[in-house]
Amino acid sequence: MTDKKWVYLFNEVEQAEKYAGSWDGVRGLLGGKGANLAEMTRIGVPVPPFFTITTEACNAYQASREFPEGMWDQTLEAIRALEAATGKKFGDPANPLLVSCRSGAKFSMPGMMDTVLNIGLNDETARGMIELTGNRRFVYDSYRRLIQMFGSVVLGIDDEAFDEPWDAYKAEKGYKLDTELNADDIEVLIDSFKKVVREHKGFDFPQNPLEQVEYATKAVFDSWSGKRAIDYRRRENIPDDLGTAVNICTMVFGNMGDDSGTGVAFTRDPQTGEDKMFGDYLINAQGEDVVAGIRNTSKIEGLANEIPDAYNEFLAVSQKLEDHFHDMQDVEFTIERGKLWMLQTRTGKRSAKASIKIATDMVHEGRISKEEALLRVTPEQVDQMLHPQFSAAEKEAAQKADRAFAKGVNASPGAAVGQVYFDADTAERMHKEHGQDVIMVRPFTKPDDVHGMLSAKGILTSEGGATSHAAVVARQFGVPCIVGASEISIDMIKREMTSDGVTVKEGEWVSLDGTTGEVYVGQLALSAVDVTEQAELMELLNWADETSRLMVWANADYPRDAERARSYGAKGIGLCRTEHMFFETSRLPHVQKMIMNSEYTQKKLNNVVELEKAFASGRLEGRSLSDEDKAKLRAEIDADHAEIAADPKAQAYFGALDVLLPLQEGDFYGLFEAMSGLPVIIRLIDPPLHEFLPSMEDLLIETTRMKALGQTEGLAEKEELLHIVESLHESNPMMGLRGIRLGIVYPDIMKMQVKAIFTAACNAKLNGLDPHPEVMIPLTGHVNELKEVQPTLVEIAKQVMADKGVEVSYKFGTMIEIPRACVTAGEIAEYAEFFSFGTNDLTQMTFGYSRDDAERSFLVDYIQKGILPKNPFQTLDREGVGRLMMKAVHDGRKVRPNLEVGICGEVGGDPVTIEFCHLIGQNYVSCSPFRVPQARLAAAHAVLKNR
Amino acid sequence: MTDKKWVYLFNEVEQAEKYAGSWDGVRGLLGGKGANLAEMTRIGVPVPPFFTITTEACNAYQASREFPEGMWDQTLEAIRALEAATGKKFGDPANPLLVSCRSGAKFSMPGMMDTVLNIGLNDETARGMIELTGNRRFVYDSYRRLIQMFGSVVLGIDDEAFDEPWDAYKAEKGYKLDTELNADDIEVLIDSFKKVVREHKGFDFPQNPLEQVEYATKAVFDSWSGKRAIDYRRRENIPDDLGTAVNICTMVFGNMGDDSGTGVAFTRDPQTGEDKMFGDYLINAQGEDVVAGIRNTSKIEGLANEIPDAYNEFLAVSQKLEDHFHDMQDVEFTIERGKLWMLQTRTGKRSAKASIKIATDMVHEGRISKEEALLRVTPEQVDQMLHPQFSAAEKEAAQKADRAFAKGVNASPGAAVGQVYFDADTAERMHKEHGQDVIMVRPFTKPDDVHGMLSAKGILTSEGGATSHAAVVARQFGVPCIVGASEISIDMIKREMTSDGVTVKEGEWVSLDGTTGEVYVGQLALSAVDVTEQAELMELLNWADETSRLMVWANADYPRDAERARSYGAKGIGLCRTEHMFFETSRLPHVQKMIMNSEYTQKKLNNVVELEKAFASGRLEGRSLSDEDKAKLRAEIDADHAEIAADPKAQAYFGALDVLLPLQEGDFYGLFEAMSGLPVIIRLIDPPLHEFLPSMEDLLIETTRMKALGQTEGLAEKEELLHIVESLHESNPMMGLRGIRLGIVYPDIMKMQVKAIFTAACNAKLNGLDPHPEVMIPLTGHVNELKEVQPTLVEIAKQVMADKGVEVSYKFGTMIEIPRACVTAGEIAEYAEFFSFGTNDLTQMTFGYSRDDAERSFLVDYIQKGILPKNPFQTLDREGVGRLMMKAVHDGRKVRPNLEVGICGEVGGDPVTIEFCHLIGQNYVSCSPFRVPQARLAAAHAVLKNR
Repeated sequence: MTDKKWVYLFNEVEQAEKYAGSWDGVRGLLGGKGANLAEMTRIGVPVPPFFTITTEACNAYQASREFPEGMWDQTLEAIRALEAATGKKFGDPANPLLVSCRSGAKFSMPGMMDTVLNIGLNDETARGMIELTGNRRFVYDSYRRLIQMFGSVVLGIDDEAFDEPWDAYKAEKGYKLDTELNADDIEVLIDSFKKVVREHKGFDFPQNPLEQVEYATKAVFDSWSGKRAIDYRRRENIPDDLGTAVNICTMVFGNMGDDSGTGVAFTRDPQTGEDKMFGDYLINAQGEDVVAGIRNTSKIEGLANEIPDAYNEFLAVSQKLEDHFHDMQDVEFTIERGKLWMLQTRTGKRSAKASIKIATDMVHEGRISKEEALLRVTPEQVDQMLHPQFSAAEKEAAQKADRAFAKGVNASPGAAVGQVYFDADTAERMHKEHGQDVIMVRPFTKPDDVHGMLSAKGILTSEGGATSHAAVVARQFGVPCIVGASEISIDMIKREMTSDGVTVKEGEWVSLDGTTGEVYVGQLALSAVDVTEQAELMELLNWADETSRLMVWANADYPRDAERARSYGAKGIGLCRTEHMFFETSRLPHVQKMIMNSEYTQKKLNNVVELEKAFASGRLEGRSLSDEDKAKLRAEIDADHAEIAADPKAQAYFGALDVLLPLQEGDFYGLFEAMSGLPVIIRLIDPPLHEFLPSMEDLLIETTRMKALGQTEGLAEKEELLHIVESLHESNPMMGLRGIRLGIVYPDIMKMQVKAIFTAACNAKLNGLDPHPEVMIPLTGHVNELKEVQPTLVEIAKQVMADKGVEVSYKFGTMIEIPRACVTAGEIAEYAEFFSFGTNDLTQMTFGYSRDDAERSFLVDYIQKGILPKNPFQTLDREGVGRLMMKAVHDGRKVRPNLEVGICGEVGGDPVTIEFCHLIGQNYVSCSPFRVPQARLAAAHAVLKNR
Repeated sequence: MTDKKWVYLFNEVEQAEKYAGSWDGVRGLLGGKGANLAEMTRIGVPVPPFFTITTEACNAYQASREFPEGMWDQTLEAIRALEAATGKKFGDPANPLLVSCRSGAKFSMPGMMDTVLNIGLNDETARGMIELTGNRRFVYDSYRRLIQMFGSVVLGIDDEAFDEPWDAYKAEKGYKLDTELNADDIEVLIDSFKKVVREHKGFDFPQNPLEQVEYATKAVFDSWSGKRAIDYRRRENIPDDLGTAVNICTMVFGNMGDDSGTGVAFTRDPQTGEDKMFGDYLINAQGEDVVAGIRNTSKIEGLANEIPDAYNEFLAVSQKLEDHFHDMQDVEFTIERGKLWMLQTRTGKRSAKASIKIATDMVHEGRISKEEALLRVTPEQVDQMLHPQFSAAEKEAAQKADRAFAKGVNASPGAAVGQVYFDADTAERMHKEHGQDVIMVRPFTKPDDVHGMLSAKGILTSEGGATSHAAVVARQFGVPCIVGASEISIDMIKREMTSDGVTVKEGEWVSLDGTTGEVYVGQLALSAVDVTEQAELMELLNWADETSRLMVWANADYPRDAERARSYGAKGIGLCRTEHMFFETSRLPHVQKMIMNSEYTQKKLNNVVELEKAFASGRLEGRSLSDEDKAKLRAEIDADHAEIAADPKAQAYFGALDVLLPLQEGDFYGLFEAMSGLPVIIRLIDPPLHEFLPSMEDLLIETTRMKALGQTEGLAEKEELLHIVESLHESNPMMGLRGIRLGIVYPDIMKMQVKAIFTAACNAKLNGLDPHPEVMIPLTGHVNELKEVQPTLVEIAKQVMADKGVEVSYKFGTMIEIPRACVTAGEIAEYAEFFSFGTNDLTQMTFGYSRDDAERSFLVDYIQKGILPKNPFQTLDREGVGRLMMKAVHDGRKVRPNLEVGICGEVGGDPVTIEFCHLIGQNYVSCSPFRVPQARLAAAHAVLKNR
């Protein structure tokens, strides 16, 4: 006989703590729910007597499918203790003890057995309860619920088996609603339900309450090793040997008369965060009536008038719970004949806004530290504050007006309002041609639908989960999205969707809240958010900055973006993409003119460069030059220069560069103005030149058609353009002639840019500003590339400063976005004063994925099948890309200890990635201005979570 | 006064050795040339008296441009010693001492000062020499040569300055040849040359012999820090502080009468390697007359009759030198009045054939070890042995017959004779249908041309360099190839090519020597080489195999390639590219049919797979299934299967796979037969599917034209095809849906292949063969990809073996060709039993280069500018790609100590890369069959050079 303790009574939390060694150990032993109930009991909160069968019992059960030795005896003893504590008795019709049975693991785990209520009811005790309560319908309904819940949850009978006799009976009686069934009806149905159990299982619904407990306990233990629970644990990385506890808790009833009642409440307002009790109650009602919405509930304050003593006790208890747990609580209570019972307390869910207000308020109230406050708010909540939203009032009004249409999985946050279209082509057309705000609705989406999704304000699907194609793509492009709204049925023939009897036709308006998964009919008002006016958020983010080591910078191409970034707290610009400016309609023609003449001109220039070198070195092809030779060579060089100067193509080339120079200068001046006093990293031209020209396919089609139809007007020009586009065509442009490679083959563009940067910086300095330009060379893969390009550019910078007579502080550095650059970072750091990880390209090349292609084809498959845990373009791949980055930082700093290291790829705004950047010792992360606030919080979290 | 020794006399080698500590030190102190002369002196070989000014003197000179203290005095003393030893005197007209002055660094270094002969001649000594020799023309010609060499080499006057009066004089006299000038003419020209010196330098040609020595010595020292020498040292990684020595050597004259003569000889035949003296001589002549070819030389054996004593001494001395240096020597000698003088000995250059014969002979003669023999032969020489060649005589005859046509870059070695065709289709047709030997000539080639290139005996292009498409493909397939023969202009309209006025029309014969880059008109006789008949080479390669640790395997797609590889000594097949078989014209239509229906069918299949999973697990969308549900589900699944079976598209898809299965089976059977007993690595399908379909551009052009012209016939089919090609189109296909990604999205293709592999292997085993299949999955980047794909394939393999009732030994492994695979090799090795580095892709992704694009654009620039030392697609980039490989081997072996590691990229046949593969502990390298012999030698070198 073992003396192992498998069962803990409500008042045995100290024993549990002693055995388990810590509070975390108690949660492991008793599960989260059991531990919380025990904790409430310990601090003197009135909780109905209960006991918990430990997770160890669950684990011991798994191998043999038998309760471990001693467990059942301890359970029987615990039941006797409940009987003693309540004065009620299991199976005693005179005063029957009823209990609930719930699973409860250390971590909340969907996939395990739910709750079974009213255990202890049987034919006899039901009769006794009727006498006690005088409410036959209530008791019979409780009894049939027990049989039904027990049948489906414990015995595994399909729900439909119970729905069938129920619906048939209603039809027979001509009832529409369940509430029309009276006590007699339910009594009849209890017999039907018992028959269902007998037919499916070959035995009767167990009348013995102990047998009910035994079955329910085994069902909880079995559910731990059920497929859904295992799948969930795999996904969430929860170990299999944690086990689940079983909580057996005395039932209390709020429907015992007018001195009874039940309610749910939050200790602060979960929408706004205001410090006042927020909840609902019903007099003479059971808990589920509050939730079911059959009767109209009352605001919690009203209870003060109806059962004042219990209400006052409730207020005191609630405050005690908040004090004890240092956080806003979500509580459930029942008042049975004037006596308050607390059934549950847990940390209350809250809106982003409330989360921030409560956290900052609690700091001011002296309840929690600033650091604790920072940890209470998630970066995602901060992010939500920046998206347009529907106000709580707006949603409440919509709900009251019965405009709630459906609810699905909240796949991509933000609110969206638009007209519904059921296919991608129509969605795109309506947006592009008619300027409509479009909500694209599909059963599910496929890669073919992406063009429609990109035209949409929001996306709604009736199938699929959080990793479905629609979800992945929507998050990718920041489009609000709800998936798996399974109540909606879509009729593609009629072009309409229906949910719970309400139909929305194509072209009609709906409103989506991607943050919560709610769909409304019609147009809800969007409330835009100005972050800087959110005082609590600003305060919280300032605390974040005090805590974090990693700086947050922003990617911004234009002064207006830089200004926003700065107002959101960015401490620098980590990436200005100069070529974005090239795409502006007023500039593109000049850029194209430059490109179309660049190869021709560069070849001419290369000749002269060779001759100039020969002249400078005094040797040509291995021969030393006589004075006479030198004079001849000089003349030749001068003639070549003159020839180039007179060449129309070269003129066009240099002319275009001359036009672009002052324009870029203006761009950069604006940035230095917006970011005076802070660093601004400007990346020199990166994309392959053909990106600035029309597509080859379009030109091919056009010239072929013109030729077939004998159209000659303009054909020659088009063919010349096609010829140039073809000559620039690359089979894999992502890995082609771009970045620093352009700087080597066509050096004039980068030279022009550096001249513009330093002219702008000098002018800014002369005008009293404080510019800090950092010139970033993209796509370095070999240190020799930098050796070839950088010194010339530095010379230009120095020349401009000398000409302007002013010094600005500056740096020259490089993107690290080629795997080879990571592997040879030590060599590269000898030249580069800073590294900026371009994780978009680095991820592409490290994985060998072409992002454009992959996200439209196999990558969605990969994420759905779990081959990749996440899209590596959204959250950094630590095992692969991350290891390369770690090596780069390590090797780079070994050579140049003060090397500035940052990240400017899209993942730079992702909290999980930010933590990694912190861990490997980067100086800053750079992200889009809108993600700066969440990044600031994430940077603080990185410190706090890795102490 | 320092007593530092700056000058060493011919007989002071012991002193030098004592000072320098070793023979290597002597070479450092006296330079290679000086040390060799001293060594000859030491072993008693007659060398004209000389002295050497040390490299230390050179280094001491560099800073101040002054001779170091004591050096000039020691030089004067040494000259006196020469005078004493020879009985001649500097500047003495009666018996003048003449010397040569040569630079000589530790390593032979082009870019430094050459030789100046006849120092000591001036107006007076010239007259004295005429009296002594009685040959006025010889003496004056020697004198004018001194002035000219001194002027250009020592004083830096441009050669043209001397050519001008020379040519003008000849024109005036109406001479065509230099030999028409008589002594009087040259006397006149001596005055002109003196004038040139005066005009260019402002001083007279120095008459004082000591001044001549001083000038020449300074010129040698100065040339050490000249730009060309510095550039050369940078390129070759030679330290700047080695310095060069100066050798001052007494001139001896072979033109002193019929008891004088001069000659050059090899101690063995440098063409065949035969062990007999091979050389030429002239009686009464100077050394340069032998080389200039003005007089007909005689075979060395003839000297036995003319000056028998000297000849016998020469034979003895030569043998002594070969004995002493343990290698075939290239010697120069002069007989002055019956006295033999050796002027130089060095290791003799030799043909590949001779190199191998001499090395193996010397082992048999007991002169050198096998290991030394291996090191005497280069892998490139072995490579040359495999290619048919033109004999030296044949080429000489062709040149004399004016059949030399052009010269280009020797891109792929070997000789080829064939009829010229100017496009791939014609080349292929003429070869296939008419059995012609074809030379394909193009301005440049593209991937479309490959079928023509494979039909050709040789390839000739007028554009492109050693890394052009033509060059790479030709080397890959062992086709002799010359690229960038820019003198050729190709007229595609007239179908002819012209070079220097000679025209070759389509269908006419040419002969290419890919080893040298020469093109001849007409048919030269080929001397074919069967490697396996080359006994010496076979012996050498067997020694190589005994020495090397790394095995050499071959890349072979067809049984005939495998057979060749095996006969060349391959110990396995490292890469069989299964998709090459798909491209065969009889198969391509089936492959296309499969592809065109794959997406459609796969979607249907995916549905059923989901349902099958639900059926197997007993749960659907989170609900558990009742027996009834299950029955329904089963019916649904069966219906779906029936529907798919009846679907014409699905039928086409499976039908195509069914056609391909036995074809692939046959392919593999052939390989197992050819390689019985050895491993055969078969790579599953790798390229993106669109590679098997027509190009999108062509289809776009065609459908646009048809539509513009209103042609409807066949338009619908073309448009459907275009639609499919567009849906498969990727912006960066190299990083797109290919390799294992195909195995995940369209698993049937790989399944069919694995079934074919194991069916073939089982059949082979049943037929008494010994197959060792190794299944290679391409493009793995994440271990989860293997987890998803490999188990299913292993199951198929086991099923086939179970069905056949036979077991074959097999492995499953993966290519390592994605940077992420290197970084996560530890994880991947848990699944993969072998790694094979696919360095083509790995290099592409590590550098971020798209090879097709890069080699046509910036890569050529990069190599020319020295940004990259070599094309990383031809020789592995150790610093970047190599570091990743090293990590992969290390991490992989940590997890799986017996992990088989090899390389199958194109660099796998490159000797420098092979050394690296050896150093990082790979098991084998795999290369094209033609490169197997050189790889075997390189693998042995890797061991010997890294002891």
